[in-house]
Amino acid sequence: MERNTTQQLTPATVDFDKPGKQIGAFHVPFSAHDDAWGVVPVPVAVISNGKGPTVILEGGNHGDEYEGPITLGELIRDLDPASVSGRLIFIPAINQPAVMAAQRVSPIDGINMNRTFPGDPLGTTTRQIAAFVNDVLFPMGDVFIDLHSGGSSLDIIPSAVIEPGKSPEQHEANVAAATAFGAPIAVVIDNRGDPRTATASAALAGLTVIGTEMAGGGTVSIDALALCRRGVRNVLAHLGVVPRHFATPVEKPPALFELTSRAHVIVEDDGVFEPIHRLGTEVRAGELAGRIHFITQPGRKPVDLHYRADGIVYGRRQPGRVRPGNCCLVVATPYESKKP
Amino acid sequence: MERNTTQQLTPATVDFDKPGKQIGAFHVPFSAHDDAWGVVPVPVAVISNGKGPTVILEGGNHGDEYEGPITLGELIRDLDPASVSGRLIFIPAINQPAVMAAQRVSPIDGINMNRTFPGDPLGTTTRQIAAFVNDVLFPMGDVFIDLHSGGSSLDIIPSAVIEPGKSPEQHEANVAAATAFGAPIAVVIDNRGDPRTATASAALAGLTVIGTEMAGGGTVSIDALALCRRGVRNVLAHLGVVPRHFATPVEKPPALFELTSRAHVIVEDDGVFEPIHRLGTEVRAGELAGRIHFITQPGRKPVDLHYRADGIVYGRRQPGRVRPGNCCLVVATPYESKKP
Amino acid sequence: MERNTTQQLTPATVDFDKPGKQIGAFHVPFSAHDDAWGVVPVPVAVISNGKGPTVILEGGNHGDEYEGPITLGELIRDLDPASVSGRLIFIPAINQPAVMAAQRVSPIDGINMNRTFPGDPLGTTTRQIAAFVNDVLFPMGDVFIDLHSGGSSLDIIPSAVIEPGKSPEQHEANVAAATAFGAPIAVVIDNRGDPRTATASAALAGLTVIGTEMAGGGTVSIDALALCRRGVRNVLAHLGVVPRHFATPVEKPPALFELTSRAHVIVEDDGVFEPIHRLGTEVRAGELAGRIHFITQPGRKPVDLHYRADGIVYGRRQPGRVRPGNCCLVVATPYESKKP
Amino acid sequence: MERNTTQQLTPATVDFDKPGKQIGAFHVPFSAHDDAWGVVPVPVAVISNGKGPTVILEGGNHGDEYEGPITLGELIRDLDPASVSGRLIFIPAINQPAVMAAQRVSPIDGINMNRTFPGDPLGTTTRQIAAFVNDVLFPMGDVFIDLHSGGSSLDIIPSAVIEPGKSPEQHEANVAAATAFGAPIAVVIDNRGDPRTATASAALAGLTVIGTEMAGGGTVSIDALALCRRGVRNVLAHLGVVPRHFATPVEKPPALFELTSRAHVIVEDDGVFEPIHRLGTEVRAGELAGRIHFITQPGRKPVDLHYRADGIVYGRRQPGRVRPGNCCLVVATPYESKKP
Amino acid sequence: MERNTTQQLTPATVDFDKPGKQIGAFHVPFSAHDDAWGVVPVPVAVISNGKGPTVILEGGNHGDEYEGPITLGELIRDLDPASVSGRLIFIPAINQPAVMAAQRVSPIDGINMNRTFPGDPLGTTTRQIAAFVNDVLFPMGDVFIDLHSGGSSLDIIPSAVIEPGKSPEQHEANVAAATAFGAPIAVVIDNRGDPRTATASAALAGLTVIGTEMAGGGTVSIDALALCRRGVRNVLAHLGVVPRHFATPVEKPPALFELTSRAHVIVEDDGVFEPIHRLGTEVRAGELAGRIHFITQPGRKPVDLHYRADGIVYGRRQPGRVRPGNCCLVVATPYESKKP
Amino acid sequence: MERNTTQQLTPATVDFDKPGKQIGAFHVPFSAHDDAWGVVPVPVAVISNGKGPTVILEGGNHGDEYEGPITLGELIRDLDPASVSGRLIFIPAINQPAVMAAQRVSPIDGINMNRTFPGDPLGTTTRQIAAFVNDVLFPMGDVFIDLHSGGSSLDIIPSAVIEPGKSPEQHEANVAAATAFGAPIAVVIDNRGDPRTATASAALAGLTVIGTEMAGGGTVSIDALALCRRGVRNVLAHLGVVPRHFATPVEKPPALFELTSRAHVIVEDDGVFEPIHRLGTEVRAGELAGRIHFITQPGRKPVDLHYRADGIVYGRRQPGRVRPGNCCLVVATPYESKKP
Repeated sequence: MERNTTQQLTPATVDFDKPGKQIGAFHVPFSAHDDAWGVVPVPVAVISNGKGPTVILEGGNHGDEYEGPITLGELIRDLDPASVSGRLIFIPAINQPAVMAAQRVSPIDGINMNRTFPGDPLGTTTRQIAAFVNDVLFPMGDVFIDLHSGGSSLDIIPSAVIEPGKSPEQHEANVAAATAFGAPIAVVIDNRGDPRTATASAALAGLTVIGTEMAGGGTVSIDALALCRRGVRNVLAHLGVVPRHFATPVEKPPALFELTSRAHVIVEDDGVFEPIHRLGTEVRAGELAGRIHFITQPGRKPVDLHYRADGIVYGRRQPGRVRPGNCCLVVATPYESKKP
Repeated sequence: MERNTTQQLTPATVDFDKPGKQIGAFHVPFSAHDDAWGVVPVPVAVISNGKGPTVILEGGNHGDEYEGPITLGELIRDLDPASVSGRLIFIPAINQPAVMAAQRVSPIDGINMNRTFPGDPLGTTTRQIAAFVNDVLFPMGDVFIDLHSGGSSLDIIPSAVIEPGKSPEQHEANVAAATAFGAPIAVVIDNRGDPRTATASAALAGLTVIGTEMAGGGTVSIDALALCRRGVRNVLAHLGVVPRHFATPVEKPPALFELTSRAHVIVEDDGVFEPIHRLGTEVRAGELAGRIHFITQPGRKPVDLHYRADGIVYGRRQPGRVRPGNCCLVVATPYESKKP
Repeated sequence: MERNTTQQLTPATVDFDKPGKQIGAFHVPFSAHDDAWGVVPVPVAVISNGKGPTVILEGGNHGDEYEGPITLGELIRDLDPASVSGRLIFIPAINQPAVMAAQRVSPIDGINMNRTFPGDPLGTTTRQIAAFVNDVLFPMGDVFIDLHSGGSSLDIIPSAVIEPGKSPEQHEANVAAATAFGAPIAVVIDNRGDPRTATASAALAGLTVIGTEMAGGGTVSIDALALCRRGVRNVLAHLGVVPRHFATPVEKPPALFELTSRAHVIVEDDGVFEPIHRLGTEVRAGELAGRIHFITQPGRKPVDLHYRADGIVYGRRQPGRVRPGNCCLVVATPYESKKP
Repeated sequence: MERNTTQQLTPATVDFDKPGKQIGAFHVPFSAHDDAWGVVPVPVAVISNGKGPTVILEGGNHGDEYEGPITLGELIRDLDPASVSGRLIFIPAINQPAVMAAQRVSPIDGINMNRTFPGDPLGTTTRQIAAFVNDVLFPMGDVFIDLHSGGSSLDIIPSAVIEPGKSPEQHEANVAAATAFGAPIAVVIDNRGDPRTATASAALAGLTVIGTEMAGGGTVSIDALALCRRGVRNVLAHLGVVPRHFATPVEKPPALFELTSRAHVIVEDDGVFEPIHRLGTEVRAGELAGRIHFITQPGRKPVDLHYRADGIVYGRRQPGRVRPGNCCLVVATPYESKKP
Repeated sequence: MERNTTQQLTPATVDFDKPGKQIGAFHVPFSAHDDAWGVVPVPVAVISNGKGPTVILEGGNHGDEYEGPITLGELIRDLDPASVSGRLIFIPAINQPAVMAAQRVSPIDGINMNRTFPGDPLGTTTRQIAAFVNDVLFPMGDVFIDLHSGGSSLDIIPSAVIEPGKSPEQHEANVAAATAFGAPIAVVIDNRGDPRTATASAALAGLTVIGTEMAGGGTVSIDALALCRRGVRNVLAHLGVVPRHFATPVEKPPALFELTSRAHVIVEDDGVFEPIHRLGTEVRAGELAGRIHFITQPGRKPVDLHYRADGIVYGRRQPGRVRPGNCCLVVATPYESKKP
Repeated sequence: MERNTTQQLTPATVDFDKPGKQIGAFHVPFSAHDDAWGVVPVPVAVISNGKGPTVILEGGNHGDEYEGPITLGELIRDLDPASVSGRLIFIPAINQPAVMAAQRVSPIDGINMNRTFPGDPLGTTTRQIAAFVNDVLFPMGDVFIDLHSGGSSLDIIPSAVIEPGKSPEQHEANVAAATAFGAPIAVVIDNRGDPRTATASAALAGLTVIGTEMAGGGTVSIDALALCRRGVRNVLAHLGVVPRHFATPVEKPPALFELTSRAHVIVEDDGVFEPIHRLGTEVRAGELAGRIHFITQPGRKPVDLHYRADGIVYGRRQPGRVRPGNCCLVVATPYESKKP
């Protein structure tokens, strides 16, 4: 019934079963003070042609991550349907209100889209959008590509992200897709098993899943954008949805890493964070990772931070100002392949 | 009378005429809903010894610029008064409320400290702080060092900034101090003659003035912090306030640039900004500078931005999201020395 | 158990089973920062006498719609219990916090009362109020009258609203009640089957249901208020709860319309909306409906809007300023009676 | 010096002395947290040709009044410079930040543009914009046309507004221009002599001045927009800046009214306002003007409001919700011409 | 499964099964705009030694109640594990974000921690914290001590609070623990049976439960803090977890009271509340309890408030300003013991 | 001219020169988004009869201080004009917007009324109100009584406050009036000479001035209200404006104190403040005054606070939560009379 409810309440201006290229939106009803009978228009595009898998490409899950949405917009405008074998469904700005506001979370209900899957067709806006994707789009799909960057608070090495598969076959497919992306590294991230992310939800629905982290700091990275443009085409070619020659040759497979339960360096003080190492530096557990300065109390000695795992510096907090509980650094540890 | 009013209303916990090292604050009265008889405690430190000039060192004029305050805090804690010849007055977090909030402008009155000099002893908090610096500290000083970074919205090449002098002698002294700093480049910035900056106010008061721009993006830059640590010591040694050996040898004088009236690339659209060139790239007026993407309207073609001056890319907007009037890029043009 | 929970947590200062007139409130517990053991007092009145149906009259479901609450307040003050046959339960300002704030949605939890039925006795305030109405009041009732206006964002032709019945009998009763109201038109509105409105919830509970839309724009309309005053009395007389002579003779039955899935004209641009036709004008799908002006970009050509259905202009957006997704116009289409 | 300061700090992208049509902006520097070196781009257009007076046309002084800006935008796009004799300077959205936000006052500094003239070139944004208009544009002008509507809170009879002249000649010229506009009525409004409005400032600068009030309620009125389109062309033809045939023949001169010190009906209670009469109704001092309902206290009797002057109902509060001090009604009294 | 989810998502830095003293936190994942991979660090301490019951001590359920957290912090720092027989688990600032903000409710999700038990491991932050306490800690515990004060809005007689037991044995144990606390009075408070409080949830889980109300007004009371320090030690000695001599001899058992359904005096007007009696005064139903003044309408007569129950004035509203629905006074009625 | 401007822009509904009792308001024009032509109605009352001085009585200068406004409202309602010799002008809620909001400062412009005198007739609302009082009322007055309490953030010993006179005669008159008030203590408070308070402004205008501090904590104190009711009548009788028998006999003159520059104990940490002594306790400089607890860091040792002056504890911070710069305690020192 849920899926019926979602479809009934959320009309789309595109026909997902029609061949060719369509650019439109699905309209999530939103009855607000300044617009009683309005909608949140979530942009969606479909390019469909011939036989082949259905690939769902998502950007804008967080509203301050730009490399993915730019890449998807270019594909939507530039791809000739004739060159497609299968179907591409693009949702380049899935959390449309967050994207308009340049915020990680929705300004409407304060919800983080990536902590609310599978959503609720009768819930608030972000949950309704998630329900549409989960209930209406995922059942149409074979592959789900979810393009993230680090957002306003993190700068992360541009990399493919591997969602742990629910079966050995799914896991292998996920790793293969991440490998095809062509980033220098690929990282297994399981979010402690949190089932509320888009990729976890897609994996539960049986799709092959690939994610990314493409720099961050709330800016558009010249390098990460170039990698993202190549990588998405590489994956689509790997899947056979676009011709082989759309891909950029990749010199070598990515180094594989994972985020363990000791990856994150969490601060306990209220101050300003000074990092010591650049992204990619090899570090060891216990090594000095940074300092917290107390700049309104110049007589107070800074406090030291230390890494908690061996590996490379994978991510770094962007804002200098920190408060207790903030994540300052993330260390990625070489991945020992273990089947799920 | 103004100066008297300022001194009377704003007691300091340090004695500016006492030798040795003192760390304290000046207390700007602030009668707020949750603290009727409270103060804004602006940290201040004095290190004084023997004969020599009085140098005023300011950080935290904007609350989201960190390299300067960290550097000043280290000097305050590490410098032995015995090694000083003259007097150092540190205000490492001058806009204390903004620093606590990690905001460019004060959360109390919404005022940008660097657009409110010479302040007003009977005005709102930011104006009262500026009045204290202008009315009480500037008359004690010979040199004013104002350490800025790009802040949350800009990433800028770490560089010394030259305030145009009000006389040839002052201008020369400003250039010499900026040269001593030891950054690869130094840039003359006149803010269209806006008299409301701290440096303009100090120059009007007759002090030798030097500023900086130390990266930005609201983060702490490893490289810029290293340069700032060296540069401030270099300037102090140049002024003779600390021994020569405190300075780091500088290989060659900085290349000199200026910001002309065509330096800024202003956006007219509401979208996401993609830059084309890294900081430091040489560019020419009319060249493609970036694109504005409309990521919630994937069918809409991006709009191109173009440079308006020849020179190097000196600064770049950090947040990807832009609205009409935002400054996306700043080009620094080689400086043709002209005496004021 | 839910109903027990609601009753237990939400005491009322009136006795619903007592004859005569009582004016009081039900107290929804609300433990807030500035009132740890306080309540939200939702006004309620009961006028009960002899035999006859129980009619529940609701106003203030949205806090910026006034014709209904004014009409109910007058009935509460003016009606002599001796003239009543049955029981009238008035909730003239059901979303009391929204009414106090003059907002469509509750300032406490941001929830739209008309998208949260059947509520939750352990949820936030708006959901607790809905649960009280659904769990405690609906089981007492035979008929539910829900008086809406267009609110701050819409101006709507004053009209009766027909909730689709869950059975042919219920549907017929709903149409008969709407006909008795005596507005020039009556409109079937199904909200795409959304089960979360007060009227949908009442219909599910088996009550006869009638709604209204009484102008709007956040103001009190002289004409709509006059119609509302007459219409509510007409319906009560039709139901036999007040004497026949309380009714105003109605010249002819209302023209019947419905809102189809193509009723709404949704804007895709960010600008200012200029309408072309007055409310009530007959229009056709494809006809020019309005223009979007870009008044901060005077060189940019306006964008045209077009109707998507044949019928009459039933509603119009009040605020000139629009953003993508806003509903600018609503077209009501002549209703072809179909039993549910 | 002020004027020099304004010009120096606020570059314009148009050349006011160049013939032909130019559309651009003047850039008010705005150094905010999310845009350190940005500007507020206030749109400006110039159409200049041959000999003739310079007319300054302003819209968007309040950001929620639309008939004026729409009319000016159409003139900017449609007017052929060849048909102009003199110079037209358009500022169709003078309070650009307020227009973007659809607010009466600026979201940047909370200032009402029409209570801040002559502005301050070193003040906050709204004051800087006012200073540019006052210091740079007014000295170029012969005539100032300021197009207002009632805004979000008032609905006003579409009418010309006569600024009291500072000399008999100026007053006569103002009346003549208002007469030429062609509205059914024209009203002398002196704002109790408040010198801070744009029109008062222009009058002080010696310009002929004409204003309007064009309906309101925060919406775009079909009728008022039609009148505004005709009226502005009529005035320009009257001034000889566009050919006579651009004007629409006006059947009879406007009835003249004024707002006396007893024009406004101010509410003392906290409730919901019900008006009794439509705009234009003739009323007398002491007559019942409206009622204040207490819809969350249905047992409480409404309070009556009474008019305080004889005349016609000229304006009416749009939002139903009122609090003490709100203006509910405005009565315009027939004007007995008195030279200033 | 819920408990597994909670544990998996919420790592603790202490080992609850380890003897000795540990001070750490449990980390509730919180992915916010300014900290994508951060946590809310909820402080927790464990002191464990030998055999004996496990006592869970909670403070900071509301963020503006201080006597409990101060007392718990002192115990954490001062208690020698060697003097403990059993295990003490301290959560001195359970709603850490509310404590940091000095607010009753969480600034993150607006939720009152004491109206959200048993929480939800996949809900918003406050619900995740409650789930951790309910799912992970309560199963470890034998006794639960929940230290409240009146908070910003209430001043309450320092007293022990008795949670009604779910069985005669549990009730007796709760009364015995409250008696041991040693306050002059103890009050049975059942919150109308609301199951969402921490103590109700603990009682449902089978723990012995004791609560407190320790003055309030958002301040730290010298007397209440002294009582709290003694009382908590008294209870721990009573339970045998610390030696008998840690207790302060109590002269006589507390007088027992309860809050009946007529305990609260709720205001219906918008004004300023003047109380008549001090806390502890004996009063009778119908007696004058206070006045509501209308200080912006000095001509309006104050409105009288009356008590609704016999007993003593147990609590009083702190803020003078009141709005309809606020609780002004709370009367505690002598308790007639009745087994549940 | 200023005074003329004020009078012209700010009409009053009372005639200050008319005998008898009038209750009305002065209307400060306020053109806001939701009320374009509205006013801020500041309540004012006049009771005038026969010969005698004009006494201006002010309450509500801060919106969260209630004893004064309640006392003034009672006098306005209860005083028979026949018993008055002279004129009483009451402004019981001078900062009307702050009083409505129960905030120290105005919610309109964020300004503290008591830091903005003499105001500005063309400034924002709070400054316009101050200008009316300073420019229109003070010139009518002989005596100014300004009734303060401690407000939300401070609890202060109920006491008369002596404004230092500008001449020996004025000072003597101020002391005599404060003595007549009949509080146990009277305190000379000079605010470091800040000229922006209402009392400083009145003193500059030549009026005899008396102030009060009447408890605080944002509540209504039973004791302070009783004292305030007596004290104001005592002063009026002392001035001969009401008959001698209106006064309550005072047993002994107040002990005189002053606030020296070392009166305030300012906190440097971010935590929770525990006081050690009750109000009125005699203390000495250097003595332990309180502790700052860090309740989210239970392992961290509290920080001690110390008094800085000898005297009695005159005021104490109400909110437990403190941040650097907050005033925790105020010590009043025995006053050594010195003529100004």
